[in-house]
Amino acid sequence: MDPNKKTLIVFSGDLDKAIAAFILANGAAAMGNDVTMFFTFWGLNIIRRPEKVRVKRSPLQAMFAGMMPRGAQRLGLSKMNFAGLGPVLMKRVMRNANISSLSELIEIAREQEITMVACSTSMEVLGLAKEDLIDGVEIAGVATYFEYADNANVNLMV
Amino acid sequence: MDPNKKTLIVFSGDLDKAIAAFILANGAAAMGNDVTMFFTFWGLNIIRRPEKVRVKRSPLQAMFAGMMPRGAQRLGLSKMNFAGLGPVLMKRVMRNANISSLSELIEIAREQEITMVACSTSMEVLGLAKEDLIDGVEIAGVATYFEYADNANVNLMV
Amino acid sequence: MDPNKKTLIVFSGDLDKAIAAFILANGAAAMGNDVTMFFTFWGLNIIRRPEKVRVKRSPLQAMFAGMMPRGAQRLGLSKMNFAGLGPVLMKRVMRNANISSLSELIEIAREQEITMVACSTSMEVLGLAKEDLIDGVEIAGVATYFEYADNANVNLMV
Repeated sequence: MDPNKKTLIVFSGDLDKAIAAFILANGAAAMGNDVTMFFTFWGLNIIRRPEKVRVKRSPLQAMFAGMMPRGAQRLGLSKMNFAGLGPVLMKRVMRNANISSLSELIEIAREQEITMVACSTSMEVLGLAKEDLIDGVEIAGVATYFEYADNANVNLMV
Repeated sequence: MDPNKKTLIVFSGDLDKAIAAFILANGAAAMGNDVTMFFTFWGLNIIRRPEKVRVKRSPLQAMFAGMMPRGAQRLGLSKMNFAGLGPVLMKRVMRNANISSLSELIEIAREQEITMVACSTSMEVLGLAKEDLIDGVEIAGVATYFEYADNANVNLMV
Repeated sequence: MDPNKKTLIVFSGDLDKAIAAFILANGAAAMGNDVTMFFTFWGLNIIRRPEKVRVKRSPLQAMFAGMMPRGAQRLGLSKMNFAGLGPVLMKRVMRNANISSLSELIEIAREQEITMVACSTSMEVLGLAKEDLIDGVEIAGVATYFEYADNANVNLMV
């Protein structure tokens, strides 16, 4: 076990939880930790490309993929979403307070070489392919998660 | 602390989170870990028997117990539930992708001898008795949780 | 790493999750652990003062601060909230079962000298100031969290 390794499972695709996850991950990385983020289920939406991607999907997969938000700019809040107004206001408050936006936080995570892993099982369930995700994301399963978690001293799930 | 022990608190009773919890637990067990799952609050609904059970409950407890879903087949999704349509579609997508259903995941967990513990305090709050739960579930409190967690190297909460 | 230290990130401001967090924290403390709770995002609402507080806020911050619940008495449930009826019924069930209310659980946490930390970044986003919070809460950022988490053997996020 290495006191300088951390992992974070990001299950939620809510804007507020995504922000919290990246603030934790970036903070840990800035303190010299190797950080690995595992995106699973709705959390995969955080690392989707904003543009529509042509991928072979079953009708049901296409339905899920089509209804879920594509990327950091389109996420809703877990509370006080108000049909999309909440996120707009929260982004504005964050900008006013000079806090990085989620897109910026993701960029910082990449600059800090945080390892981002997408859960292969969830991708199949939700009909997402590698092409749907932003660059630099690895795809792996639960065994890979525990290999990382076994070597980390702080493991969280959001 | 034992690098081959893991614990998972399952607070949520959402189908998607329950699936994630059991995929994590079963994956860890398949890798040779002793896994303990603690079901608390709505998470107790995952391990409820599907049939109605006659148990002495106060009127308020009966109300909570009566309105909550009974078991893995009746859970809703945390997102895109669409009044019960979402779970139906998700189950179909999972079957198409040859991913085990939640009921099968629970069965696998039992075959792998994952320890399942129901939180006694939550059971009292929600009006659930031992008879309401599937076989093989122990009942214990927070002290038992920490005894397990203190000896595990990965502790998560869903 | 100290086997007698625990941390808990409280992201959620739901009554049920707040109760779970404090039962875990108080249980750990009763077993002789040093426990630190980090309140972030909606979790800050759990430790807000019940009364209105006059603080300088931007109009947007005032809006968020104005709409969010002030303190343990006003939180909703994550499930079965029924426009505020759910929490009333849950409080009654808990009282009948002789389980401490959330306000009492917070009081017990203080008596057990559980360290409560409010996340400075979230406070800015949601427009909350030190004056908005109950007494005895420290304010700190993500670096402080990891200093505590690095020294603890169980770290959870609710």
